[in-house]
Amino acid sequence: MSVLIVGSTALDSIKTPRGDHPRLLGGSASYASVAASFFAPVKLVGVVGEDFPPACLRLYRKHKIDLEGLQMAPGRTFHWSGEYEVNMNNRRTLKTELGVFETFTPRLPASWRNCPYVLLANIAPSLQLLVLDQMRRPKFVVADTMDLWMNIALPDLLKLLRRLDGFVLNESEARQLTQEHNLMRAARKIHRLGPDYVIIKKGEHGAILSARQKLFVAPAYPLENVVDPTGAGDCFVGGMMGWLAAAGGSVEAHLRRAVLYGSVLASYCCEGFGLKALTAVKRQAIERRLKELESLTRF
Amino acid sequence: MSVLIVGSTALDSIKTPRGDHPRLLGGSASYASVAASFFAPVKLVGVVGEDFPPACLRLYRKHKIDLEGLQMAPGRTFHWSGEYEVNMNNRRTLKTELGVFETFTPRLPASWRNCPYVLLANIAPSLQLLVLDQMRRPKFVVADTMDLWMNIALPDLLKLLRRLDGFVLNESEARQLTQEHNLMRAARKIHRLGPDYVIIKKGEHGAILSARQKLFVAPAYPLENVVDPTGAGDCFVGGMMGWLAAAGGSVEAHLRRAVLYGSVLASYCCEGFGLKALTAVKRQAIERRLKELESLTRF
Repeated sequence: MSVLIVGSTALDSIKTPRGDHPRLLGGSASYASVAASFFAPVKLVGVVGEDFPPACLRLYRKHKIDLEGLQMAPGRTFHWSGEYEVNMNNRRTLKTELGVFETFTPRLPASWRNCPYVLLANIAPSLQLLVLDQMRRPKFVVADTMDLWMNIALPDLLKLLRRLDGFVLNESEARQLTQEHNLMRAARKIHRLGPDYVIIKKGEHGAILSARQKLFVAPAYPLENVVDPTGAGDCFVGGMMGWLAAAGGSVEAHLRRAVLYGSVLASYCCEGFGLKALTAVKRQAIERRLKELESLTRF
Repeated sequence: MSVLIVGSTALDSIKTPRGDHPRLLGGSASYASVAASFFAPVKLVGVVGEDFPPACLRLYRKHKIDLEGLQMAPGRTFHWSGEYEVNMNNRRTLKTELGVFETFTPRLPASWRNCPYVLLANIAPSLQLLVLDQMRRPKFVVADTMDLWMNIALPDLLKLLRRLDGFVLNESEARQLTQEHNLMRAARKIHRLGPDYVIIKKGEHGAILSARQKLFVAPAYPLENVVDPTGAGDCFVGGMMGWLAAAGGSVEAHLRRAVLYGSVLASYCCEGFGLKALTAVKRQAIERRLKELESLTRF
């Protein structure tokens, strides 16, 4: 089955201690879509400007991403630039130029409204809601978010939460949203806001999947060389949803493994600038790394 | 088989947002010994002063800890006092009074020199070395440490490292010792300093066990109520060594499970001030929590 993904489609200029890389394909929807594409057909909803490089479109097409929902609008593509510190954990945004995103209204092709798996990748919750409004009873809806929306669009985010099956956020966002330092209590509070599944990303420490009465702790794939962590969280949720869509059947039965696939996709993402490492990965390598990840917690 | 434990034996005065608790039984050897005692007979090497409360001796005896190596010296017991911040992650030392520890020379009863399992709990590496010098070919030697010794006794610590089978330290200590932010690379560097097994404690994020070519990632037991994290790291390594001593046979075969038992003991430690919660635990409860911990990573 296919997965519909909405989110930002952007050009990223990334500075890390390892080098400068201007105008790479970026945005939450791009990362998530490429990650999901290893498992399932992807339908991408987003917007790009007239300056969007043909090479970026080719990258989408290489991954057989359906672009019928990608609008080409007059103006410039959303452009983000940021800088990482030596330890790669702290990121500083240098510039955010919204461009065509300022007036973006997602419109779904009619045939996409029945798509069973929906990933609302990180983007304004009002836009995530607009996509959800156009869907016909999807089977499984997951949203990702970021601290910005808690600061400037909390009512929209809370409205969205009531309509989700799964919600993905990182540690500090979970603490900010719930005002709870303890992640177990934070997860419980988030369940009360709506979603049956709460997935808390902890970067190099892995992820926690809370399913109300059940808990799953997933390790991160241990990387020795982090080149660029941009988009790792998007790849995590993209890989997770792609694998769920490919598996079909009961989400509950597949979600734990889906989280591990997400971790694997995120690990590849970190090994190159932008999507460079991820786009070169073979499915076989993903399976190998999944086995390694499984063996890390076996005893 | 029994486990010999050397480390600090102290009185701790602990301030947390949940309350003030003066003069509790503390010290790395106390925590580690009580934790280990759930699995194996413990021989404790340490020193206390004339002010050491009888109630503390009773607590050791309740856990059948052999005190033949515990010296009673003229003067006052080592006293540490510290304060935790609201989130329980940041700790500030308010006072350290070494007392009888200033002139402590560990002396092992003759019959203890053949003890197969040796835990050099956190204490000056020169004292850890003195204990090791008195042992006859122990089967498995593990040391714990802290940042202080890297700052003021690095040559001793490096000398110790060459004589260890296993070395336990926390994330920030691993980074400090190796000047490597990436924990995988830090573990590899520590292996080169001597120990075959490197165990990096990550608090609420669990622990990593690196065995040169193999890696094991252990989750922390998810706690909703952390009352006092003092001694959790000592309980971790104490529980781990106690279980290894009880299991006997191949250390390699048992070490992963031993790390999980360590996590369980550490979790109980955090649920009360000082040793209060831990000393009340029943073996059955430990087994139940171990099963829960195992199920967290199964899928």
